[in-house]
Amino acid sequence: MSAAFALDERLRADSVPVLDLPLCAVRLMNDARYAWLLLVPRRAGLVEVADLDPAAQATLWRECALAAAALRSVAPCDKLNLGALGNIVRQLHLHVVARRVGDAAWPRPVWGCGHAEPYAEPALSVRLEALRQAFAAPPD
Amino acid sequence: MSAAFALDERLRADSVPVLDLPLCAVRLMNDARYAWLLLVPRRAGLVEVADLDPAAQATLWRECALAAAALRSVAPCDKLNLGALGNIVRQLHLHVVARRVGDAAWPRPVWGCGHAEPYAEPALSVRLEALRQAFAAPPD
Repeated sequence: MSAAFALDERLRADSVPVLDLPLCAVRLMNDARYAWLLLVPRRAGLVEVADLDPAAQATLWRECALAAAALRSVAPCDKLNLGALGNIVRQLHLHVVARRVGDAAWPRPVWGCGHAEPYAEPALSVRLEALRQAFAAPPD
Repeated sequence: MSAAFALDERLRADSVPVLDLPLCAVRLMNDARYAWLLLVPRRAGLVEVADLDPAAQATLWRECALAAAALRSVAPCDKLNLGALGNIVRQLHLHVVARRVGDAAWPRPVWGCGHAEPYAEPALSVRLEALRQAFAAPPD
């Protein structure tokens, strides 16, 4: 009997739910400095991408591509950054970050750079709704 | 007529060739602080993963999984880090980095952390040969 999936507490605290895809929970990092999504496969005990079987890995990367397209459609950017690090939070999670030239960390990575600036309302609700619409109608 | 693929000059200067997979050139970052591979799809004009068609994206991620397994087999690690950033070098490239607790950047990302420490010989030749053998005989 395998343990049920439970979202890591730090990931939960740092982000808000957008929607669930077949494999991954998609969450928005609560940091208004960047448009930044997390994808967290909803299976217990994952640390590395290689912990997923090949079919699930393929699903993960397809969902990553969907997330990248949705993010880009609501937050035009100069470069997308993808990352799977897990040095601090071991639960497998992917970062998809829309970067703008001159943003708070540019051109360095966003991880570990300064402090998150939580969204105000209604900006958070607006962004979440735009993301949900973008996932529902992915651009060609 | 499309331009021929040419490796970005900064990537070329910072890394040494390991071998070519069907899609990607695999290169070792010449930085002995970490076991660190680059995968560079050998197609001209790519910036984002989404610039590859879906079949080629699938190939990219399969090759990334092969590279991760090969790297891990020659450089046991506590965590693999995957990244596609491209904020400085725009040519599409993936990083696969074997991280150890207490390494030069731990637990921060390796990008932009200090200065590369080039391999001495014979350490470089030994690592390249071990990697080539690991790619030739991927672990189950």
